[in-house]
Amino acid sequence: MVPHIFRYEISPHVRVYLECNGVLHSRRSDFQNIEVVDSLDFGRMLVLDGVINLTERDEFVYHEMLAHVPVFSHPEPHTVLIVGGGDGGTARELLKHEGINRIQLVEIDEEVISVSKEYFPSLGQALDHPRVHVLVMDAIEYLKETDETFDIILIDSTDPVVEQSGGLFTTPFYEDCLNALTDNGIVAAQVGDVFFEPHLIIRVFNNLKEVFGVVKPFSAPIPSYTVFPYCFAFCSNRIDPQKDSGLPRFDGGFETRYYNPQVHQAAFALPEYLRRNFEG
Amino acid sequence: MVPHIFRYEISPHVRVYLECNGVLHSRRSDFQNIEVVDSLDFGRMLVLDGVINLTERDEFVYHEMLAHVPVFSHPEPHTVLIVGGGDGGTARELLKHEGINRIQLVEIDEEVISVSKEYFPSLGQALDHPRVHVLVMDAIEYLKETDETFDIILIDSTDPVVEQSGGLFTTPFYEDCLNALTDNGIVAAQVGDVFFEPHLIIRVFNNLKEVFGVVKPFSAPIPSYTVFPYCFAFCSNRIDPQKDSGLPRFDGGFETRYYNPQVHQAAFALPEYLRRNFEG
Repeated sequence: MVPHIFRYEISPHVRVYLECNGVLHSRRSDFQNIEVVDSLDFGRMLVLDGVINLTERDEFVYHEMLAHVPVFSHPEPHTVLIVGGGDGGTARELLKHEGINRIQLVEIDEEVISVSKEYFPSLGQALDHPRVHVLVMDAIEYLKETDETFDIILIDSTDPVVEQSGGLFTTPFYEDCLNALTDNGIVAAQVGDVFFEPHLIIRVFNNLKEVFGVVKPFSAPIPSYTVFPYCFAFCSNRIDPQKDSGLPRFDGGFETRYYNPQVHQAAFALPEYLRRNFEG
Repeated sequence: MVPHIFRYEISPHVRVYLECNGVLHSRRSDFQNIEVVDSLDFGRMLVLDGVINLTERDEFVYHEMLAHVPVFSHPEPHTVLIVGGGDGGTARELLKHEGINRIQLVEIDEEVISVSKEYFPSLGQALDHPRVHVLVMDAIEYLKETDETFDIILIDSTDPVVEQSGGLFTTPFYEDCLNALTDNGIVAAQVGDVFFEPHLIIRVFNNLKEVFGVVKPFSAPIPSYTVFPYCFAFCSNRIDPQKDSGLPRFDGGFETRYYNPQVHQAAFALPEYLRRNFEG
């Protein structure tokens, strides 16, 4: 049997070919092409518009870092807004923190939610938890209209290059995030790959710096994304994830697979060529 | 024109295809197949037995980390032995330290040296420096016979899976390294990828622990190696690269592109799933 091959580009002239058992789901929603591909080495993969969004094998790296780095940097977070994140992985990690009693998730694409519940139940089932409130709408509109405030906002979107999430990387959107934050509030966002597209990422960071006093990149290696380092942004006007916390508190009420206090600190160390770009 | 494609496996069922302008050199030496491939996104690549050994675009990450982490951990290193490293990249980084007055390089394959001097002159020319002494022989034999001692030994070989370098990952070889070390001596070694082959790497670390009191993995993301984290070992009987030095001294007498004191510390932070494997 000729294996099914999933193929994607990681840079203009480098392609990756993954052998797969098959495609379990393939449908165009109102917003994007959604595929579930069953790969041999990474397990099931959620593919949005041809880009690997998550894989069963290594999604824990991404979701633990996006959730636990800001939560363990905050003195006492109770409410969290997830922008996007319809797969449920980030909500699953937040639920491990018993002090967080309200998780508001705003996902534009209902089909991401239903596909995740069907094909990635270990992520999708978090969306049915009573502490998680799911709203299907554009988070840009939601934040313009809401009166609610949050201790933490996590921007768990597709990459800045993708058209429908472009508005999530602009200064006006970040201002709306700031307006919805409590005093010690933190925004953390995924921003993409910094090796092949550093200028794109630097533009995003410049937008963030117009709104927040503390803006720090942090990174994690995510094997299925293939090109490193994969980058997140930590933003606040009050909290410095390194200076204020030393090694962050880590209560140990639950187990992690990637996150620990040493990794928390290490994620903020920038290689010299990036440090010059971000701080220079 | 149909582009030339260089193809390699990063895991049993994942292949990477790099578009290339062509193959500049392809010859079997007494030890291995040596190719120089001119790729569009990574520049020239040195390929040994089908595995990317280095690329122009990102070799600085590997060579800076293998050289500067041990050197900046040592109080006053003067002599360094490089096992392998015939491309010259590690020697080039060591030469930036003016206190190091003797670099002994022992490379088994003369053709790696000549190919590097021809196709990678920014690396290979380091081998012509008066502080660098090049010996073409098996480093296993060299270490059995030598009376010289070194402050630092850097094992800059191909991966443990490759037949001809297998002897470089054994306890007897590490004992010979220890015998050739001065009192504050440090051994640093490249050990390969820990995501898809953790058991192989753990066996190497167990061998190291039979000989050295301090054995710590450290890692760096090397984009062209594709799967992360890529792992090195720091070994000593006296020096702890984290505890003794805080942030290591960094004189700044030269510029780096990857290494800095924050990256030095961060490289030793292990994700939880690896920490349990290595420390458990």
